[in-house]
Amino acid sequence: MTLPEGYSLRKLKESDYDNQYIDTLKVLTTVGEISSSQFSDLFKHWEANSSIYHPYVITNSVGSVVSTGMLLVEKKLIHGCGSVGHIEDISVASSEQGKRLGSTMVAHLAELSKELGCYKVILDCSEHNVKFYEKGGFKNEGVEMCKRFD
Amino acid sequence: MTLPEGYSLRKLKESDYDNQYIDTLKVLTTVGEISSSQFSDLFKHWEANSSIYHPYVITNSVGSVVSTGMLLVEKKLIHGCGSVGHIEDISVASSEQGKRLGSTMVAHLAELSKELGCYKVILDCSEHNVKFYEKGGFKNEGVEMCKRFD
Repeated sequence: MTLPEGYSLRKLKESDYDNQYIDTLKVLTTVGEISSSQFSDLFKHWEANSSIYHPYVITNSVGSVVSTGMLLVEKKLIHGCGSVGHIEDISVASSEQGKRLGSTMVAHLAELSKELGCYKVILDCSEHNVKFYEKGGFKNEGVEMCKRFD
Repeated sequence: MTLPEGYSLRKLKESDYDNQYIDTLKVLTTVGEISSSQFSDLFKHWEANSSIYHPYVITNSVGSVVSTGMLLVEKKLIHGCGSVGHIEDISVASSEQGKRLGSTMVAHLAELSKELGCYKVILDCSEHNVKFYEKGGFKNEGVEMCKRFD
């Protein structure tokens, strides 16, 4: 999958706090006000657990973040001490839709989970996004159940 | 939720390798042969990342593991740097079904995720288990999509 000219896919950096990372995630859901020190603490937690958290971004031709994605690698006992990749928080800036950035991010994180030895990669989505993920080679495998505390 | 007399819910111990932990997980899915040193490495990984992995068991009146469950706590940026609990690998030994051990395990992990400050707890299940989780206060919130590499 190719990105538009000048666009890059790379790991999240701490300096992306000031580079549209948070605004890009606001397309997805409620984010709230995140201070620089909150972001820094979170970034350090992800970094300290870097075998588990793999946060990525796509930047546009001026270097601003325009897409986000996270791969969480869970080590299990089942499947011969196998690992499962969880794709989370895929988002594309409103002004950058239609450039297949979301597909590229998902394909990258799926490929990364394979490289990291996962026997499968999973994600939860709304009914509305099933076709998008099917095009990327995903299959419906179950139901997401949720209990909210907020 | 109360357990049968003599049963206890507690964190997984490394010594549970020889205490039916693996056999209990075999009810759920393929496990394969796990050596003592593989288990020990996995246990140490979970322990080294103890803010993320919370593995629990229920033991019966002779102290054998009869139910398993894992809570994975994921720190996110969205929802004000919120956390999401993922319930994984709920299993009950075949000979111990019908004692509400699975419900007790799920209720415990959901409560734990609330105590740990998660704004929601989620899990993926088959269509067949939706009613079981609805009884525990979970609601269908989405679709699980999967890509397998094995």
